[in-house]
Amino acid sequence: MKSSTDPIQNLGKLIACRSITPLEGGALTVVQSMLAPMGFEVERPVFSEDDTPDVENLYARRSGNGPHLMFAGHTDVVPVGDEEAWTYPPFSAAIHNGEMYGRGAVDMKGGIACFVAAVGRHLEKHGGLNGSISFVITGDEEGPSINGTGKLLEWAKAKGESWDAAVVGEPTNPEKLGDMMKIGRRGSLSGTIVVNGVQGHVAYPHLADNPVRGLVTLVESLLYPAFDTGTKDFQATNLEITTIDVGNPAVNVIPAKATATFNIRFNDTWTDETLMAEIHNRLDKAAGRRKLRPGKTAPVNYELTWRDHPSHVFLTHDEKLIGTLISAVEATTGKRPQLSTSGGTSDARFIKDYCPVVEFGLVGKTMHMVDERVAIADLETLTQIYERFIADFFA
Amino acid sequence: MKSSTDPIQNLGKLIACRSITPLEGGALTVVQSMLAPMGFEVERPVFSEDDTPDVENLYARRSGNGPHLMFAGHTDVVPVGDEEAWTYPPFSAAIHNGEMYGRGAVDMKGGIACFVAAVGRHLEKHGGLNGSISFVITGDEEGPSINGTGKLLEWAKAKGESWDAAVVGEPTNPEKLGDMMKIGRRGSLSGTIVVNGVQGHVAYPHLADNPVRGLVTLVESLLYPAFDTGTKDFQATNLEITTIDVGNPAVNVIPAKATATFNIRFNDTWTDETLMAEIHNRLDKAAGRRKLRPGKTAPVNYELTWRDHPSHVFLTHDEKLIGTLISAVEATTGKRPQLSTSGGTSDARFIKDYCPVVEFGLVGKTMHMVDERVAIADLETLTQIYERFIADFFA
Repeated sequence: MKSSTDPIQNLGKLIACRSITPLEGGALTVVQSMLAPMGFEVERPVFSEDDTPDVENLYARRSGNGPHLMFAGHTDVVPVGDEEAWTYPPFSAAIHNGEMYGRGAVDMKGGIACFVAAVGRHLEKHGGLNGSISFVITGDEEGPSINGTGKLLEWAKAKGESWDAAVVGEPTNPEKLGDMMKIGRRGSLSGTIVVNGVQGHVAYPHLADNPVRGLVTLVESLLYPAFDTGTKDFQATNLEITTIDVGNPAVNVIPAKATATFNIRFNDTWTDETLMAEIHNRLDKAAGRRKLRPGKTAPVNYELTWRDHPSHVFLTHDEKLIGTLISAVEATTGKRPQLSTSGGTSDARFIKDYCPVVEFGLVGKTMHMVDERVAIADLETLTQIYERFIADFFA
Repeated sequence: MKSSTDPIQNLGKLIACRSITPLEGGALTVVQSMLAPMGFEVERPVFSEDDTPDVENLYARRSGNGPHLMFAGHTDVVPVGDEEAWTYPPFSAAIHNGEMYGRGAVDMKGGIACFVAAVGRHLEKHGGLNGSISFVITGDEEGPSINGTGKLLEWAKAKGESWDAAVVGEPTNPEKLGDMMKIGRRGSLSGTIVVNGVQGHVAYPHLADNPVRGLVTLVESLLYPAFDTGTKDFQATNLEITTIDVGNPAVNVIPAKATATFNIRFNDTWTDETLMAEIHNRLDKAAGRRKLRPGKTAPVNYELTWRDHPSHVFLTHDEKLIGTLISAVEATTGKRPQLSTSGGTSDARFIKDYCPVVEFGLVGKTMHMVDERVAIADLETLTQIYERFIADFFA
């Protein structure tokens, strides 16, 4: 059995693929070519939906007697930005001064390269596996995330698949390998508020109804007071007004409409439902007490539309999964990783509905930037962490 | 001496000119052709300024021994809007059911047509005038008002002109001729607030600084409390936020900048200076107490820019001028006009620096609308009011 046990070679092949989201760019074919020789059955389902591009995905399983471990990730990468500004071309995988340069080096072709190498080394050493491993790899994590991990898991479940635990290989370490693993994520919810008023001339405000007054009152009710002060495992819930727009160029005209959009990152004080109810409640209360003009009040005429699908908050409680990964990190790096729920969303939000999930990968410092790069030493260390985790998980 | 004593004919000729601001469209030439035969010396200065169109103006004086009365107005009109929606073409001066249709019928070619007719009748009856009358007619009242009445008065003053009183022929009556004359106007002041923050990802608000929070706090400080509750002669000062804009399409991004523009119509509680100081004071106070996040405060980084020139508040106290016009209106219509300072600004804001000024003209109900029109009977009545006023003023 020929196996891809060198994470540096694996990553070089992956970076060479121009898999800018949603393009496959040959990256899933590289993964397939590494896994098939190790005994993985590989499938490449394509998912479609109106108004989004078709996206290729990969599901690869090596079956055996014992528990079923999922490794999840993505081969799509964000655009390169100003290509001229890169020290080395973004798809060249150039190595300089102990670092490999390339888009996706840490987010997260590097994580895939290491996990493939770890599995290869385990199989070489032990000749087999006391269980099953599946790779759940999508090409739609950096894009709309509609034809990606969510659908891939549904598709796999429909054909009878189930899993006991999952590791996502996203870059979780802020500064150094071993800093941090993620054991949950905040939820995310976005909405747009439209306030309808009556257009008119600024000199005759009694004939008009300025929607900006109402919108400012509504926005204030979302900003203050704070939703909570955080929980044992999570930061405080935080709401940001991402935009307010009226678009009225005429300084003597009262506009007809004003809109605001917000995003809220919320902790386990809330579910989607209780948080939506709280927001509706704040807005309704604020809308009722608008000061139209001194001495006058009238309810604000507003509409709230929720955007996209909310991302649910979750926290993984599986002590065996978390403990096994902590031990592997500590044994390899000498550092005990912080257990965190901070940061943005990840595809773990889909996986948590199927099995316990944790996230651990490379150092994310250069992700999405010009000159994204990874320390060669980190690739070897992460491979060792993953190899030890696999050995302990199936022990 | 051939004089244009029929306001209906005068107005027909004026409406036929397509003098959509800033175009002269032949309208000033029509005025000149009516005034010159009555013994007026007519000049047509053109004023220019960077970034605005050149505009033609008209100054016409008939000199005599006695006081100097100014009649002020404009021949430019606002665009016709949806021309198809007009019952009669907007430059046809079609008469139907006792009304003449046309853009500018009431705002304010009609006022000019009547004043010209009134002067003509007075001269026919008395063979002369115990004083001087000047027409101050601009083509830049509906536009930026930069190359119009303000410059025309400066220009006239520079060549030695001065005036004892002025009447502006804008449509001042809301419903019926005789309803209302204007004896002052509120001031108008506009400003734009820019709040600069720090862009970032919504999941990492501590690394960013959302300018929307600060802007909402600043805007609230301008909206509440009210600036005053009005004075004996004026409505309450009123501030409107005419636009707020961020323009951020990404719901996961905290924007870098947020702007708001406001316009305030203010009464004689304030001067430009005291009001600007009050606004600066409110903003500075609000900027200092921003709640960045619960428990955290930092001053809002904002800039305030005043837009254009403020329009000063003014109130005319000349009892002879006001009384003479009231008597003329009452004697002709049987109604005592309300003395008002309401509504938008007018070119009276320039004139008040040279002599006492009042405003009285046609019924404004259809101004700026499709099917702008004037009752034929009103043209005759307004001509009689003006004629009586001229007779009494020079008596």
